[in-house]
Amino acid sequence: MSTEPPILDVFWQHRTIRFFLRQPIPPEHLDLIIQAGRRAPTDAQGQMFAFIRVTDPVLRDRLATLCNDQQHIRDAAEFFVVCLDVHRLRLLVERCGRAFGMGPRISLIYGATDATMVAQNMVVAAEALGYGTCYIGAVQNNTDVIARALALPKGVLPLYGLCIGVPDPERIPPYTRPRIPQALTFMENCYREPSPEALDEAIAVMSARGDWRDNLVRYFAAGGTMAQREPVMARAWRQQGLEVDGSPVNSER
Amino acid sequence: MSTEPPILDVFWQHRTIRFFLRQPIPPEHLDLIIQAGRRAPTDAQGQMFAFIRVTDPVLRDRLATLCNDQQHIRDAAEFFVVCLDVHRLRLLVERCGRAFGMGPRISLIYGATDATMVAQNMVVAAEALGYGTCYIGAVQNNTDVIARALALPKGVLPLYGLCIGVPDPERIPPYTRPRIPQALTFMENCYREPSPEALDEAIAVMSARGDWRDNLVRYFAAGGTMAQREPVMARAWRQQGLEVDGSPVNSER
Repeated sequence: MSTEPPILDVFWQHRTIRFFLRQPIPPEHLDLIIQAGRRAPTDAQGQMFAFIRVTDPVLRDRLATLCNDQQHIRDAAEFFVVCLDVHRLRLLVERCGRAFGMGPRISLIYGATDATMVAQNMVVAAEALGYGTCYIGAVQNNTDVIARALALPKGVLPLYGLCIGVPDPERIPPYTRPRIPQALTFMENCYREPSPEALDEAIAVMSARGDWRDNLVRYFAAGGTMAQREPVMARAWRQQGLEVDGSPVNSER
Repeated sequence: MSTEPPILDVFWQHRTIRFFLRQPIPPEHLDLIIQAGRRAPTDAQGQMFAFIRVTDPVLRDRLATLCNDQQHIRDAAEFFVVCLDVHRLRLLVERCGRAFGMGPRISLIYGATDATMVAQNMVVAAEALGYGTCYIGAVQNNTDVIARALALPKGVLPLYGLCIGVPDPERIPPYTRPRIPQALTFMENCYREPSPEALDEAIAVMSARGDWRDNLVRYFAAGGTMAQREPVMARAWRQQGLEVDGSPVNSER
């Protein structure tokens, strides 16, 4: 399209990278990536996030093992555990001589969205600089254990990991992944219930490279990966002081 | 920096825009913004989001009123209510002949992060095209009412609004907002508890344009805006079938 600025190419070229060369990211590039993250919007200026950069190889290896043994966590130049953080906000409010008032539900939602605005800016900046990225949802296989491994106080919860590194040029996916048809995710003025035909079309579109039904069942059906993560998340919310019981988050250590 | 690709300028120039000209966004630009959103990463290919584009002026006005009467919701060329959506995923899994297995905690966290990767891509793309953006956290003042106004089924929850439009050139903020010092949000290998001095420095840095303490107390202290939103969020989670009771999300209408 003639009106299209080349800077949007980073979106069209996006693909998740799971094979990295063991090469570092120069400090000035890492700094640009982090500064891009720090410029993200933030709800009510709360900046409810904490990113733990994992540079210790022993810790990195342990986290990779806890995240379904994903080798790219070990190989990537950089690996962050992305957390929501309302602990710091409590300390700041108390420093102003007031009691903290955020409840767990608002903390969980705003913390997750604040942290993700930062993380996604970092992904876009990293890809613009030529690096590859991979979010690691498998942090939720052992959220509670990972929270302890990183000495996270109450009020801080790991959301996912983020690998950033130099892609192995031999193993960059040759295609970008499909998305379900736009009409299923972008609607006008009210929710539009998908028809059975639209669901079938979505499954067909997503199955361009292998049957998407396998993915749907493995992750999202009863007994699947997500169902297995629910009790882990329950333990982690409780351990990190974010259990949903109506009282403000108590993030005392 | 000579190695810096031009898209990074978008991050350095970012500021939230709250004054828009009443000018439309050309369809081809709106399409680029939406396509950039659709290219965002998604956890386990779940695409757990629904964006409701509000074009009906009566509905737009009502939503603005429900969101603390923010005039920019009425003025912006485009306004989206950004939602997490596991309802569609349930339908897809059932279409595969299996029972849905996602619990509410995993749905809330992954849904919020999936939706926000899309939204933040849209923000970056919109700003790259010269538009201004503003997230609307005040959706949470009336989440449950807004969910009904948009006919959202169970399994779908509004997270925030997103205004995109042509900035009023007379009222673009002349400065970018400060952020708390990096050491408080980016840490290495474990959580670093902020010292009282670091908290005071954060408050000083953030108070470059007006006392940040006022903001902290108004939003985050006991009795503040966030505390008032907690019972609304509790009602909305219950209403939308996302109450945290250990069972899979039931998104039957």
